[in-house]
Amino acid sequence: MIGIFDSGVGGMTVARAIEQALPQYRLVYFGDLARTPYGSKSGETIARYSRENVEFLLGQGAKIIVVACNSAASVAADRLRTAYPVPIFEVIAPAVAEAIKASGGGRIGVIGTRATVKSGVYEAKIRAAADHCRVFSVACPLLVPLVEEGWLARRETKMIVRRYLAPLKEKQVDTLVLGCTHYPLLKDLIQPRIGRRVRVIDSSQALAADLRTFLDENPALAAELSRGGENLYYASDVTEAATMIALRIFGRPIELRHTG
Amino acid sequence: MIGIFDSGVGGMTVARAIEQALPQYRLVYFGDLARTPYGSKSGETIARYSRENVEFLLGQGAKIIVVACNSAASVAADRLRTAYPVPIFEVIAPAVAEAIKASGGGRIGVIGTRATVKSGVYEAKIRAAADHCRVFSVACPLLVPLVEEGWLARRETKMIVRRYLAPLKEKQVDTLVLGCTHYPLLKDLIQPRIGRRVRVIDSSQALAADLRTFLDENPALAAELSRGGENLYYASDVTEAATMIALRIFGRPIELRHTG
Repeated sequence: MIGIFDSGVGGMTVARAIEQALPQYRLVYFGDLARTPYGSKSGETIARYSRENVEFLLGQGAKIIVVACNSAASVAADRLRTAYPVPIFEVIAPAVAEAIKASGGGRIGVIGTRATVKSGVYEAKIRAAADHCRVFSVACPLLVPLVEEGWLARRETKMIVRRYLAPLKEKQVDTLVLGCTHYPLLKDLIQPRIGRRVRVIDSSQALAADLRTFLDENPALAAELSRGGENLYYASDVTEAATMIALRIFGRPIELRHTG
Repeated sequence: MIGIFDSGVGGMTVARAIEQALPQYRLVYFGDLARTPYGSKSGETIARYSRENVEFLLGQGAKIIVVACNSAASVAADRLRTAYPVPIFEVIAPAVAEAIKASGGGRIGVIGTRATVKSGVYEAKIRAAADHCRVFSVACPLLVPLVEEGWLARRETKMIVRRYLAPLKEKQVDTLVLGCTHYPLLKDLIQPRIGRRVRVIDSSQALAADLRTFLDENPALAAELSRGGENLYYASDVTEAATMIALRIFGRPIELRHTG
């Protein structure tokens, strides 16, 4: 199976894109709702949780891992690649590639959790691939709780989005990376506040396309993946709020299976 | 030692009150920052974490446990009392007693996390002790992240507080229980928005007073408690944001020791 993990339910935006791009394969998702959120925790703690999540997914039969959490990808992707002999995909590389392609003026904004922004990974990867680009990052720690409350169109959310985006607007970014898998749910609020002409990048489609290309090029591995059967959504805790966000992301009810 | 635990740093408002009321005793605090927050998780998960936290504190030599987290107290206090043969204090009973004493008209509002409000524990305990009282509860899940961001006086925080309090204002409560240890940090915002004549109850002083009375009445146990030596503050994760809130609560730097 294709194994996907996230700190909670935000990574389901990635799972959904993969499900749409690669409907023939079976997915197993793990959301660490018992320890969510990751984005305000230390890199060391996030790395430990990420290893545990990968081991859970390998135990479920995953042959490919997708890190559908920017905070985990920021601090742990390289360590996971060293530790586990399976292909590891994550949300940052495709976002970086797309942002560079989209940016005409080389002024790229990145919004994410505190852990993601502190890691400096977007800046490092963008500059390594395109050193003419300038990268401006802002941590937006309140956006995850606002999304999790379902406050997607409230006045307070709009004000908070505007406040977070103000320094990026001032820097006149031409491209904005949504560096957290919750943020696509706020895209309709973010786009008008950063400016209609700014390209807003959500990496889930690009990640799914990369994964499809990889499987086309690796038929032996692709042949090992399960086909048919329903996709499995596991969570280390199950709450009503999480079930509601899953419904919103997929547009259909998702059965969250408790791992506990 | 007197052992205190919380999901994170909010419980330090309780630790500080105990430190001031009982300066002769040594405290050991544990904040579960690696798994914070508890208030949006299931009762089952919160109860499991609470047991683990008590075991950590007993291992550090605690002879008394203080549950300085309303979410944990709501779902786990009774189970902890059954499971461990030590006195267990918590933040709800003193808040209930004080609210009943303060309420002239018997109209009591309670604000707390989703877990606390869902448990119905404030309502049950207030009505059991004073069945003429009416209790109106509102879950305020965004207040903890706002406090943790240090957004204590921002316009957005004021708007969100006003929105959460609106149904309680409409019910004309005469007393308001701050049913989460983070909320005392927002008291200056809450008081004018709920109304100057409404009594706002923060249980930490009352809890510390109860603990002092208990130790006066149990000199054998009191004699077993450590005196002198610095108080110990442990956390399962250590972040800059947590260190900043600790500084704000105590008015002095607090060394957070990683339990990792």
